[in-house]
Amino acid sequence: MRATVLHAPRDVRVEDRPRAALQQPTDAVIRTVATCVCGSDLWDYRGVNEIAEPTPGGHEYVGIVEEVGSEVTGIKPGQLVVGLFFASDNTCPNCENGYQTNCLHREFVGGCQAEYVRVPLADGTLVHVPGDVAEEHIPSLLACSDVMGTGWYAAVAAQVEPGDTVAVVGDGAVGLCAVIAAKELGATRIIAMSRHAPRQQLAREFGATDVVAERGHEGAARIKELTGGIGADAVLECVGNPESMRQALHSTRPGGNVGFVGVPHGVQIDGEELFFSHVALRGGPAPVRAFLPDLIERVLTGRINPGKVFDLELPLDQAAEGYRAMDERRAIKTLLRP
Amino acid sequence: MRATVLHAPRDVRVEDRPRAALQQPTDAVIRTVATCVCGSDLWDYRGVNEIAEPTPGGHEYVGIVEEVGSEVTGIKPGQLVVGLFFASDNTCPNCENGYQTNCLHREFVGGCQAEYVRVPLADGTLVHVPGDVAEEHIPSLLACSDVMGTGWYAAVAAQVEPGDTVAVVGDGAVGLCAVIAAKELGATRIIAMSRHAPRQQLAREFGATDVVAERGHEGAARIKELTGGIGADAVLECVGNPESMRQALHSTRPGGNVGFVGVPHGVQIDGEELFFSHVALRGGPAPVRAFLPDLIERVLTGRINPGKVFDLELPLDQAAEGYRAMDERRAIKTLLRP
Repeated sequence: MRATVLHAPRDVRVEDRPRAALQQPTDAVIRTVATCVCGSDLWDYRGVNEIAEPTPGGHEYVGIVEEVGSEVTGIKPGQLVVGLFFASDNTCPNCENGYQTNCLHREFVGGCQAEYVRVPLADGTLVHVPGDVAEEHIPSLLACSDVMGTGWYAAVAAQVEPGDTVAVVGDGAVGLCAVIAAKELGATRIIAMSRHAPRQQLAREFGATDVVAERGHEGAARIKELTGGIGADAVLECVGNPESMRQALHSTRPGGNVGFVGVPHGVQIDGEELFFSHVALRGGPAPVRAFLPDLIERVLTGRINPGKVFDLELPLDQAAEGYRAMDERRAIKTLLRP
Repeated sequence: MRATVLHAPRDVRVEDRPRAALQQPTDAVIRTVATCVCGSDLWDYRGVNEIAEPTPGGHEYVGIVEEVGSEVTGIKPGQLVVGLFFASDNTCPNCENGYQTNCLHREFVGGCQAEYVRVPLADGTLVHVPGDVAEEHIPSLLACSDVMGTGWYAAVAAQVEPGDTVAVVGDGAVGLCAVIAAKELGATRIIAMSRHAPRQQLAREFGATDVVAERGHEGAARIKELTGGIGADAVLECVGNPESMRQALHSTRPGGNVGFVGVPHGVQIDGEELFFSHVALRGGPAPVRAFLPDLIERVLTGRINPGKVFDLELPLDQAAEGYRAMDERRAIKTLLRP
């Protein structure tokens, strides 16, 4: 099968690899309908994370179930499914608490930029999309596999409530989806922090009521100014570097919440400063599985359209250009068709 | 008036000082009925915080209103009141959000180990205790001025809910009061972390169902063992050093909450580790004012008896011995009578 492989920083190739196959009786193999490039793939692509050996890329996918292992009972061949970057059994105590990305049996699902994907713990991990699904919904369903679910978790972790003022740090696909989440959860004022016109526009389309172009200290000062000197009720940190985290913490009101979903790189938080700020922090790899059925329904009923974050669509064979376009910020997010 | 003054590490003296007097029309002056020594006073006493000049001590007090400024309308001379370590107007946005210790006009109320105390923003800061108050309730009312309110905030910040398993790190007066708070908020399992027999016993009396004597890695491992390998739903960190914070974070289940009320000294939190733990953190100087009317009612109706943390009572003139006994851990907390 055709699949992307990262060989070195900025060296992504599409190669022939052995077709994904069942390994455990709880596995499924799916035929990929759509996959994509994630902002977090860029950490590897840019060489921020070390590349020890050639590594198949991607962890987002929508597909048709091709075959299932003997112990899979809830998922059947021929079904359209959305899957996740962490496989989970969806029955352990952590899953029952709604933290499937901390499942006691979790397993990373990598190498999804490929014609076929092996999905462990298929009953817990895959969600069937019922009915005849219009082709136009595929990008939004694919977004639910990670970025929409991650933006949703940012809002849930920050305890967004009806009437809240919410600030979103980061205008990548996750940040933009976090705007959708804040709106769906009832925020009445949503401040997108972005300095890129096309992203500002999409943020407004998704529900942002204000846009702040300033960053760092100036950005936080601007949020304070917009909130009567107090700060936002909730801030969704969707980047993961020290500056964005500082910006998020300084933009939040005393008693407010920061949800952080950008994988932290070099972030240290001073205990004393956090203490006197009265701000609460919750982050982590988003337990998208907890939200996925609800998100799929919102997509199918037309309430949300997160697929708009895909502003570049390419055949899988042109994946290298898809990575390049995101690296150079020519594209927000690249959808790949096997 | 007689008052304590800290001159140097371990050098507390009771001296004659000018009697507290009104300075602003929003002030009150109270005649102290009872005051005490706080665990946080020991940071200064031990020389951890620098002592720049001779400093009057103490920030916890119950008293009778002696006089009020011309703009004070809610508090009257002759009333028995409980006050707080931060004066707040109780009307600014941060106060309305329940974070009075981040009041836009907050002012630290120090020098309360004294016969009289000047309390700024009296209408916002003081709470009148109605009716004929029995002498036996005085210690518990005094505890509400800080340690009971701080333990309560630890439980609120950690979002303790009915049915939860709660671990408490720290067996000082705040940790012991946090046990009371966890019980009142409906926790069904309360694990006190303590290696001192008299404190273990008081923790059990206050509602602890389990006691763990191990600390650090072993302590966290023991909590995991007691919770099926998962961790506690909520952990109340009542110490404030790097080891206790690590212990708290490692004792909490994915998706659980740490409330931290020990003023952090040298605590750094690694962003990546916090991220993958899925644990939420909220701390800060407790907004005791938000809880005080409710806590006073619980004391007067006999539901809670946090005054038991005072295992040493001395005349104000013997304050030096009161500090020494706490420093040497011979006493949990010292009550002082002017």
